[in-house]
Amino acid sequence: MTLNELKEQVCHANLELVKYQLVTLTWGNVSGIDRERGLVAIKPSGVSYDIMRPEHIVVIDLDGKRVEGTLNPSSDTPTHLALYKAFEKIGGITHTHSEHAVMFAQAGREIPCFGTTHADHFYGAIPLTRYLTEQEVEEDYEGNTGTVIIERFAGINPLEMPAVLVAGHAPFAWGKTPEDSVKNSLVLEKVAQMALGTLQLRPENPPLPAYVLQKHYLRKHGPNAYYGQK
Amino acid sequence: MTLNELKEQVCHANLELVKYQLVTLTWGNVSGIDRERGLVAIKPSGVSYDIMRPEHIVVIDLDGKRVEGTLNPSSDTPTHLALYKAFEKIGGITHTHSEHAVMFAQAGREIPCFGTTHADHFYGAIPLTRYLTEQEVEEDYEGNTGTVIIERFAGINPLEMPAVLVAGHAPFAWGKTPEDSVKNSLVLEKVAQMALGTLQLRPENPPLPAYVLQKHYLRKHGPNAYYGQK
Amino acid sequence: MTLNELKEQVCHANLELVKYQLVTLTWGNVSGIDRERGLVAIKPSGVSYDIMRPEHIVVIDLDGKRVEGTLNPSSDTPTHLALYKAFEKIGGITHTHSEHAVMFAQAGREIPCFGTTHADHFYGAIPLTRYLTEQEVEEDYEGNTGTVIIERFAGINPLEMPAVLVAGHAPFAWGKTPEDSVKNSLVLEKVAQMALGTLQLRPENPPLPAYVLQKHYLRKHGPNAYYGQK
Amino acid sequence: MTLNELKEQVCHANLELVKYQLVTLTWGNVSGIDRERGLVAIKPSGVSYDIMRPEHIVVIDLDGKRVEGTLNPSSDTPTHLALYKAFEKIGGITHTHSEHAVMFAQAGREIPCFGTTHADHFYGAIPLTRYLTEQEVEEDYEGNTGTVIIERFAGINPLEMPAVLVAGHAPFAWGKTPEDSVKNSLVLEKVAQMALGTLQLRPENPPLPAYVLQKHYLRKHGPNAYYGQK
Repeated sequence: MTLNELKEQVCHANLELVKYQLVTLTWGNVSGIDRERGLVAIKPSGVSYDIMRPEHIVVIDLDGKRVEGTLNPSSDTPTHLALYKAFEKIGGITHTHSEHAVMFAQAGREIPCFGTTHADHFYGAIPLTRYLTEQEVEEDYEGNTGTVIIERFAGINPLEMPAVLVAGHAPFAWGKTPEDSVKNSLVLEKVAQMALGTLQLRPENPPLPAYVLQKHYLRKHGPNAYYGQK
Repeated sequence: MTLNELKEQVCHANLELVKYQLVTLTWGNVSGIDRERGLVAIKPSGVSYDIMRPEHIVVIDLDGKRVEGTLNPSSDTPTHLALYKAFEKIGGITHTHSEHAVMFAQAGREIPCFGTTHADHFYGAIPLTRYLTEQEVEEDYEGNTGTVIIERFAGINPLEMPAVLVAGHAPFAWGKTPEDSVKNSLVLEKVAQMALGTLQLRPENPPLPAYVLQKHYLRKHGPNAYYGQK
Repeated sequence: MTLNELKEQVCHANLELVKYQLVTLTWGNVSGIDRERGLVAIKPSGVSYDIMRPEHIVVIDLDGKRVEGTLNPSSDTPTHLALYKAFEKIGGITHTHSEHAVMFAQAGREIPCFGTTHADHFYGAIPLTRYLTEQEVEEDYEGNTGTVIIERFAGINPLEMPAVLVAGHAPFAWGKTPEDSVKNSLVLEKVAQMALGTLQLRPENPPLPAYVLQKHYLRKHGPNAYYGQK
Repeated sequence: MTLNELKEQVCHANLELVKYQLVTLTWGNVSGIDRERGLVAIKPSGVSYDIMRPEHIVVIDLDGKRVEGTLNPSSDTPTHLALYKAFEKIGGITHTHSEHAVMFAQAGREIPCFGTTHADHFYGAIPLTRYLTEQEVEEDYEGNTGTVIIERFAGINPLEMPAVLVAGHAPFAWGKTPEDSVKNSLVLEKVAQMALGTLQLRPENPPLPAYVLQKHYLRKHGPNAYYGQK
């Protein structure tokens, strides 16, 4: 894959956020990584989706140094870089402020796995980070947002749980490609919406039995997956 | 009806899921049956609605053997087949993860008949299945999803109650044709949305009086139905 | 106004139900009356909005006898006729199953006037009818739906309160023209949506002070109205 | 900037209300001010957005005297004028009845700052005015709506808090330009929607820690802002 192809992929994935109604104004950004070159392509900061084209996408190295493009990269870039360094198998990251996922992040609640829609994509409850401390906010806010996510994922496989809620903030999702990370953001939003309604119908709703979670997750993602066309 | 016509009907019905906003990504599938030939046409697994055409539709016999088409049929095919075998008068089946119906399925609650919108289409509360046991999940997950639906419908006429909620999962709906089953899925989603709001306004809301349910159902479906153009 | 003009108005108003997202499938109907001729134009029963044209609109007299058109009129026609006879100054009627208005109708709750959006269009809480009795349902269901509305409006000016909730069923709204009645249906739906959210934030929310209700209603509708272009 | 340019800006901003789904029918209006000339351009009263063009925009002076245009200005004009006089640095004002913001206004609750989406745009909880008294309503309803907003903003910088909820009524938002005020209305509506869901998940939810609020607000708005392209 050339760098131009990566920029096209990342631009396309950013525009899919609009198609799936996952963004308001310019809230949201998608990035992708070229692991061989160690380069990350990411949305520029505060640019309208109406005019976004591949040439606007900014390319940086893993230290955040700009390699291609004239615009500033997304202000959330340090979070993306921290995640790419810690989660070595992911290829794309999406950050949104999608409404229902934000509700859970703001309420400081994980999203329990209540059904098979959830289980098809996330292997358990969607984790919630702690709040950043005042010192973490002052010293390196966006970098430390990555830190608290990584801390929360101790012992969790990020490919089996491709999303997180940052407390008081919003979700991040990831995947094997930029497009995958957008799809996981979309599924997360739907799962959050359904979980809210489920809790309204039954506030103490129990999670899905573990054996159903396992079955659904593995029929789509395990070595013997049989969903889709292989 | 030729097999090609059935495939066109089933393709069209699958695309109506998109029109009615009943699906996210590829979650959802519609099938139709040719009772004389004993053949079922169904959506292929994991294919995008953006590119779906009649030639993608897979044709199988009632044992699940592929008769036409090169793609894998929907992974939910064994559930469809079980329902066609048990409910001999239905001609089409739709499975979705529509949001409000899923909320009730996840909360383990039936949808009571609170009003005439419901009564016009479903003759009583929308039934909820039990969870599958661990053994049922391991041995034949999709087939046994059919089993628990059929078990729940003991004594219920599936044409008078053309929908069900599978606990922890999502709805299935059916009808005389594939298109009918899509319409019943749409009505189910609207009825679920209205029931959620009704319960928020009045948690112990009583069901519609039986005589109103009966009147509304029968003015559309009974032998003396007088709704629409005859 | 010619009868053809009335049919065009009624057809246009029915299609506005779709534009304003007030209908699902064929649930909903608008009628208009020519008071001089004593003739009512109304949507045909069960015809898709996708193909509806003025020539499909059915014309009947106030006894329900068809004067023009070959299709069956809406099955709710007897309700429309009862309202035209009782409310002599209204010129159009709309019936929908719009979601939030139905939630209140199903929960058996009036919609209190919580704010100026409501007060701009409805002079007080939206009234709720009683349920029809079993005998009323059996003898003349649609006609008696009109009867319970009229009974509820004893002492209420239907032009100051151009909507009602029928218990366990759905709203009817009306106005000086068919188009007016559609607008009132739309406002009712928005007001219902906002009232639901208001009650979620504050279950015992008090109504708007009477002097604000009066001011808002009269600035749009009283003899000294100063809203809009006169 | 010529007066024609201001009218074009104000017309465009009014049409953005439609694009962002912030208005129903004609509920809502945007104005802009030319501070040098002391002239305000504002939407005409009750004119449909479908046909609105720059030549419909009405120009008035700060006493409300019409300087250009033949239509009546919005009936909310006295509120706009009062705010322009009191908040000397704002350049545009938007009034809507957007659903979720209205829910809080009707419930008489401020919108707490629960997350960074809120903190990015509003420096603390969205203030709520008191109700107008009966005398205030009778003497000068729209002017006194401005009065209670200004009274509530004693000690608050309107550029740091560019929105308010008028009790029992609806929101007003403002900004440096008409377009800015529309964006703040949109953000307010999203923030209100998310806050409602947050409170449903956790009724006693605490506000965002002050140091996170400060960080987020200042990274977009302070002298050292680093969001977007500078």
